[in-house]
Amino acid sequence: MSPRVVALGGGHGLAASLAALRRVTDDLTGIVTVADNGGSSGRLREEFGILPPGDLRMALAALCRDDEWGRTWADILQHRFSGDGPLANHALGNLLLAATWDQLGDTVKGLHLVGELLGAQGRVLPMAAVPLNIEADVRSREEPGDISVIRGQAQVAKASGQVLNVRLDPADPPACPESVAAIDDADWVVIGPGSWFTSVMPNLLVPSLRAALVRTTARRVLVLNLVAQPGETEGLTPSNHLDVLAAHAPDLRLDVVVADAAMVDDDPLIVPAAARLGARLVCAEVASRSDRDQHDPERLATVFAGVFSTARVNAAFDEEEPRTWP
Amino acid sequence: MSPRVVALGGGHGLAASLAALRRVTDDLTGIVTVADNGGSSGRLREEFGILPPGDLRMALAALCRDDEWGRTWADILQHRFSGDGPLANHALGNLLLAATWDQLGDTVKGLHLVGELLGAQGRVLPMAAVPLNIEADVRSREEPGDISVIRGQAQVAKASGQVLNVRLDPADPPACPESVAAIDDADWVVIGPGSWFTSVMPNLLVPSLRAALVRTTARRVLVLNLVAQPGETEGLTPSNHLDVLAAHAPDLRLDVVVADAAMVDDDPLIVPAAARLGARLVCAEVASRSDRDQHDPERLATVFAGVFSTARVNAAFDEEEPRTWP
Repeated sequence: MSPRVVALGGGHGLAASLAALRRVTDDLTGIVTVADNGGSSGRLREEFGILPPGDLRMALAALCRDDEWGRTWADILQHRFSGDGPLANHALGNLLLAATWDQLGDTVKGLHLVGELLGAQGRVLPMAAVPLNIEADVRSREEPGDISVIRGQAQVAKASGQVLNVRLDPADPPACPESVAAIDDADWVVIGPGSWFTSVMPNLLVPSLRAALVRTTARRVLVLNLVAQPGETEGLTPSNHLDVLAAHAPDLRLDVVVADAAMVDDDPLIVPAAARLGARLVCAEVASRSDRDQHDPERLATVFAGVFSTARVNAAFDEEEPRTWP
Repeated sequence: MSPRVVALGGGHGLAASLAALRRVTDDLTGIVTVADNGGSSGRLREEFGILPPGDLRMALAALCRDDEWGRTWADILQHRFSGDGPLANHALGNLLLAATWDQLGDTVKGLHLVGELLGAQGRVLPMAAVPLNIEADVRSREEPGDISVIRGQAQVAKASGQVLNVRLDPADPPACPESVAAIDDADWVVIGPGSWFTSVMPNLLVPSLRAALVRTTARRVLVLNLVAQPGETEGLTPSNHLDVLAAHAPDLRLDVVVADAAMVDDDPLIVPAAARLGARLVCAEVASRSDRDQHDPERLATVFAGVFSTARVNAAFDEEEPRTWP
């Protein structure tokens, strides 16, 4: 039987984990950050007051099948209008979600229906029932004593200073009930990869979602990024990423941290940082051969398959766990 | 075996004939006027130089199945964005077609793919491979000697004078080759109902499409409108409609003219007008019970089924044709 897997995040990072996970399970749910305020999503949010659809669309595209039909529709979902007219840069999938939500009056039902239309191999849910904003404390790189508040996901993502932490506004948004239930019912929860402060941390800041992540009997896997992002996580080591996570969700324990071998080679603090969170470190080659900054879905799928089955073996052998895999 | 049926027209009229015809054949093609320059279609045409998608979208929606899935997706295709922002009044289906055409670089392939996605019960083709404009000679109702040229489908449709005739610009556009082939291969061709000058006549003005309509071995059925349209066909009797058709396509012969009984009751010229075109008149109740201005798809389907089978019977009985049906 397929494990019930829930993946949390946003943007390209979540798309990478979903594209990998749909290869190893038939019971997959993506839970998506809804704090985007830039680009096509920001404009739709402003025009219609809806959830920013961009990351939800990207997750749906990642769940499209790996055949001609799936690839064609993923491309059309992702298609952006060209030129500099009123539609320029809107992604078609964003408009499809906006129309479907308005027609049905129900975000979750709309996502389900679009997923069904495309033959998506899994479902996509928003982390919260309302659009959110992100606010960050950012330390100037020139004047380290100078800390300013930056508001908006798009603005934080390109902050030139060092992001210290992020908050949600509103601070206690209603979670999407289906997302909470999915976490409660999961066998595995996968957090990351993705823009650490603007896509991954926000999921941990929705109170009832974090509570579900803490109480679920699912095992928790964290997937680290392949590179630091200019601005947002510039200068952060992999172990720093784990410290950031611990600071934002102090009560959250992990079981496994997945890292690309090349990424953590020169970070001696990564194993103890993982251990502090309760996790063993799994190192593997997960970067794409053609683009070292992108996770390769096939490679990541192999690692997930290994982690999911190794864990079962380990459980049987009383948690005698290898530090690396395979 | 299902008869091969091709329906020509545009807008609500073609949608009505397609919604009826998909009930009586599994081999159905809609050929759609592409001269719209108003509303969402006009804006998309201007922004991207594409075929106006509106009537194509409406035809696809009419081909959606009559179950919950089909009705839901027809509604979403037809959904118009609200408010007064940059997306206001765009129909989602228009944006879907625009994105698909841009992504695939092929109008016909894009229409096929969207039809497949929705499970459409038939296919939709444009009448021409390029966007067209309509130009009309319009006689002032106040000063009958005053004839002016009005340009643009949207402008002609709401002309206050009497429309005398329409032309295409360019006058000799390339037809869509698949549309020509569909007419050549058809068993039945259905023309109308629809806005007479702006949706129905344009199909007859594309030279290679008209040539195919003239040479095809298919039988030709014309469906008359239920009401004259304010402006466009104000004051035209049903027989006048046939005269307009004869004037725009002098070499086109018809086999059957379908009219609503109530509509032609007080038009003694309708039978001879049909006969001049080579057609017998079939009168039946085809208006919706709730809205006399709309064709009822079920009733129209019954008439088409009768016409298609009666013709076979008649052929066997040496064309001894009834003047009315049923």
